[in-house]
Amino acid sequence: MPHPKKVVAAIDAYLAAVAAGDLDGILALYAADATLEDPVGSDPVRGPVDIRAFYERALAVRMTAERVGSVRVAGSEAAFAFTLRMPDLGMTIDVIETMAFDDDARITSMRAFWGPGNITR
Amino acid sequence: MPHPKKVVAAIDAYLAAVAAGDLDGILALYAADATLEDPVGSDPVRGPVDIRAFYERALAVRMTAERVGSVRVAGSEAAFAFTLRMPDLGMTIDVIETMAFDDDARITSMRAFWGPGNITR
Repeated sequence: MPHPKKVVAAIDAYLAAVAAGDLDGILALYAADATLEDPVGSDPVRGPVDIRAFYERALAVRMTAERVGSVRVAGSEAAFAFTLRMPDLGMTIDVIETMAFDDDARITSMRAFWGPGNITR
Repeated sequence: MPHPKKVVAAIDAYLAAVAAGDLDGILALYAADATLEDPVGSDPVRGPVDIRAFYERALAVRMTAERVGSVRVAGSEAAFAFTLRMPDLGMTIDVIETMAFDDDARITSMRAFWGPGNITR
């Protein structure tokens, strides 16, 4: 089980890398066999090639990602809320993500909960 | 897929029932074959008998549950943050829960993300 402090550090590094548009920084936080579901209910994205392609598309737009409240670490999983701002689109999305981690606190799965009701323009 | 408004209404009814200590009110929001994992990483609780027993134990302590931020509805699932206060224990827990719903917006699974780092005394 990863140490809770390492899980929180990984999540804050993730949000910082998203805000910096740091594609390699994001990918370094994922385990090799990870899955990603964003938004929840869409087809999961599996493995490094498809996960890279997903973030390449996402990071085409400039964004900031500010955590709201504490990271809830529960065993080898965690949940956290954040505000995703895309100033060029004049759009803000309130997101909650859940992540599962391996023993080295690398992300093995990410699920992003958001829908039309969480978008402000 | 349940209507997003019904999902938000079910979650707010859930938090109100928790705060009211309304055991039957909580159980009425669950589907018959539901599972519950609280905290995430513990053994899942399955079915109405065990779910009732879980909430009987939980509701032995007076508590309030105040939602923080919007409900993130994504397809037939949702995530939300809330502050759980147990005044008799002088304890507050910052929780994020994820829930899955059936077509009638009844809870088919609940997972509560929280750990020692989210408890304030």
